[in-house]
Amino acid sequence: MSGFLGEFLGTMILIVLGVGCGAGISLNKAYAKGQGWLFVTLAWGMAVTFGVYVAGQFGSQGHLNPAVTIGFAAFGFFPWSQVMPYLLGQFAGAFVGAALVILHYYPHFKETKADEGNSVGIFATGPAINSPFFNFLSETIATFVFIFTLLNLGNFTQGLKPLIVGFLIMVVGQALGSTTGFALNPARDFSPRLAYAILPVPNKGGANWAYAWVPVLGPIAGGLLASGLQFLLK
Amino acid sequence: MSGFLGEFLGTMILIVLGVGCGAGISLNKAYAKGQGWLFVTLAWGMAVTFGVYVAGQFGSQGHLNPAVTIGFAAFGFFPWSQVMPYLLGQFAGAFVGAALVILHYYPHFKETKADEGNSVGIFATGPAINSPFFNFLSETIATFVFIFTLLNLGNFTQGLKPLIVGFLIMVVGQALGSTTGFALNPARDFSPRLAYAILPVPNKGGANWAYAWVPVLGPIAGGLLASGLQFLLK
Amino acid sequence: MSGFLGEFLGTMILIVLGVGCGAGISLNKAYAKGQGWLFVTLAWGMAVTFGVYVAGQFGSQGHLNPAVTIGFAAFGFFPWSQVMPYLLGQFAGAFVGAALVILHYYPHFKETKADEGNSVGIFATGPAINSPFFNFLSETIATFVFIFTLLNLGNFTQGLKPLIVGFLIMVVGQALGSTTGFALNPARDFSPRLAYAILPVPNKGGANWAYAWVPVLGPIAGGLLASGLQFLLK
Amino acid sequence: MSGFLGEFLGTMILIVLGVGCGAGISLNKAYAKGQGWLFVTLAWGMAVTFGVYVAGQFGSQGHLNPAVTIGFAAFGFFPWSQVMPYLLGQFAGAFVGAALVILHYYPHFKETKADEGNSVGIFATGPAINSPFFNFLSETIATFVFIFTLLNLGNFTQGLKPLIVGFLIMVVGQALGSTTGFALNPARDFSPRLAYAILPVPNKGGANWAYAWVPVLGPIAGGLLASGLQFLLK
Repeated sequence: MSGFLGEFLGTMILIVLGVGCGAGISLNKAYAKGQGWLFVTLAWGMAVTFGVYVAGQFGSQGHLNPAVTIGFAAFGFFPWSQVMPYLLGQFAGAFVGAALVILHYYPHFKETKADEGNSVGIFATGPAINSPFFNFLSETIATFVFIFTLLNLGNFTQGLKPLIVGFLIMVVGQALGSTTGFALNPARDFSPRLAYAILPVPNKGGANWAYAWVPVLGPIAGGLLASGLQFLLK
Repeated sequence: MSGFLGEFLGTMILIVLGVGCGAGISLNKAYAKGQGWLFVTLAWGMAVTFGVYVAGQFGSQGHLNPAVTIGFAAFGFFPWSQVMPYLLGQFAGAFVGAALVILHYYPHFKETKADEGNSVGIFATGPAINSPFFNFLSETIATFVFIFTLLNLGNFTQGLKPLIVGFLIMVVGQALGSTTGFALNPARDFSPRLAYAILPVPNKGGANWAYAWVPVLGPIAGGLLASGLQFLLK
Repeated sequence: MSGFLGEFLGTMILIVLGVGCGAGISLNKAYAKGQGWLFVTLAWGMAVTFGVYVAGQFGSQGHLNPAVTIGFAAFGFFPWSQVMPYLLGQFAGAFVGAALVILHYYPHFKETKADEGNSVGIFATGPAINSPFFNFLSETIATFVFIFTLLNLGNFTQGLKPLIVGFLIMVVGQALGSTTGFALNPARDFSPRLAYAILPVPNKGGANWAYAWVPVLGPIAGGLLASGLQFLLK
Repeated sequence: MSGFLGEFLGTMILIVLGVGCGAGISLNKAYAKGQGWLFVTLAWGMAVTFGVYVAGQFGSQGHLNPAVTIGFAAFGFFPWSQVMPYLLGQFAGAFVGAALVILHYYPHFKETKADEGNSVGIFATGPAINSPFFNFLSETIATFVFIFTLLNLGNFTQGLKPLIVGFLIMVVGQALGSTTGFALNPARDFSPRLAYAILPVPNKGGANWAYAWVPVLGPIAGGLLASGLQFLLK
């Protein structure tokens, strides 16, 4: 149960901060409107930092990410019996976090007309160049780099290590996020996309479900590769 | 007494750095003029970091914020007997900090004419879209996210933890500050607004008192929610 | 063997993140396109941070840089018997890292025509003003400042010290990288240049081999000077 | 002697990084050309961080700043017998650091004509609005805030504390540096100004000696105020 609760609360914090940043840079009249990729990657990095802190205090390992949980479990770094409560917490927390962002920015959604661009990009990732094969490869490579490094940070929920995890996310976003928007995490992409699709967001467009498999399967592939390599080498 | 002194000095440092940044980006001929939301959120974050360090060295818990003090006290995380000296220190320190900024930037206030925009925004927050209900909700949500996370950082005045608190403020500002300017703190908003209203600031405009209840009551509501949730879950 | 493996993996992570950032700011349709020198220096700094973490977990000292290895060995800070596996790991890891960036950004290379500028700058450094003497001097001075400071950070693979190394790289890049692009590291420059030259990068230009000796010999000279000074003074 | 050596080397690193950043943002063809106040304040902050690390390893307390040394000595936080070697190290180290920047950027100085602006601003501070009284007051207030906070950070040369000092310099620059360019330190301003005046810098202008007393006396006044307040309160 502590696994579910920690992952739920931590992923909620992660998404309210990360998707909130997306809303701030995109919606009309928001003070952060127009901020660039440095702002985005730093905010997502710190979103993860504080998600990890919160999750760690409630007794989970602070994965906040099915690609981490599944990758770790597949190679014995995490018990299979805990996988289901972790995943449930991650997907549910991400949904609630996205819903909070909608509430928080409600008047700004109203001020931003649908013909100014599809606001799904606030919630879910999309490719800079549409190419399912390379998009999948991009998410796989970026998540591989992220999780392989994560596996070599030691216990990352203690002391100041969550800050280091945040900077890791930031630099992965700076270096490898330019192609697909660095989902790196099925829950980070799927649940906010679902929230966008089913909740009453003013002026909303399509949820681009056709692309939704990439940021789910790519990160899982990357997580398996990273954990597998670590298993082989250590 | 150490509670009053620590909160006074810490909040003074917080406001001289935070409001000072506001002056730097807004006033004519200032070298920081025109810097954006990344600059603002980072500066306010570090302003809190160093306020916490100073407060901690003088024996307070480094709240610097009535919403923290009241929220913590309401659910037993802080003794009621200390609430009054803490609040007095916070409001008085914020006033002195704002007065120092006026002195520091005096010639720049003179160079910035009133018809170029109301300089109250240097001192106090205001809404991007005027909507009392949603503005109150925004301050409540942002402060809830801030204080709930703060409650899960452990003792945040020791070692390098004040740096982590600073990054927390930064990312809350990046993610959720776009709607109301992330007061998060009644003293941070009320006392500088009061200083602006009663001190001789060149070329000043109105202090927008009509809005002043939002950044007082919203953060208190958010602090109560955060502490209450923590109390329920732990 | 652990020296080779750690340096290989760490330098691979360093280059996939650093060169990846170069691709992100340069290639058409990349989300980071157009980001400036702050972004670049921060990304390279964090690239080193995480390279050092990974290398340290696999039992190397996290040099990731022949100028460090050779400079340290020359003055007794590192055993000569380990120099060869370290260098092999560094050059090989940098090559693989650069190859991963080509794969990751493949469609973006296709979208960026050769007449829009030579994409070798994503992989290898070049001078802002062509002047072999001063370019060599610049790389020597910058690497001297970097490695002399590094020698005074204590054991930099433990705890949070890799983060400090990352900020060191960042500020050296901010302060002294404006002239030659702060290679600071023969492997960082030579191997990605080689990868660019021999791998099938779409729309590629010349690899500018005429300049390639500067970012190899300059950093080695700077590393020797830094280690020599440390040896003399301590 | 260790006091002199540590302060010499640490201040040299501080100035080569800080003044180097000034050159990078100002000189033609430099890659950092045009970067703004965030870049500048972050670079100066990290310049101090690494100056403190180096100084600390050579047995000094890492003041790097006569305003710190004199202020501390005046109220018993530092022995008077050490003041002279510290000051000599600081002024000499800053001179050598500035000379290294001239060498490093020599071709860029040649590419930047004197009528494009006086390059003294790379080396020494100047007021945004010329007003000796308020400029002096600004340096006093900013240095007071800096040194009073510094006195409450604990031993700032150990562990990761130099990083915290760097962020302190950054935020003081962000908040209070807009008026006079945040010298905060007589050696940081005087010695590079002297180096500019007497060394062969291509296309140089006047050294603005008329202003030079402000960034010497203002920081000393601020340091005395900060140490005096600390002495009274603790």
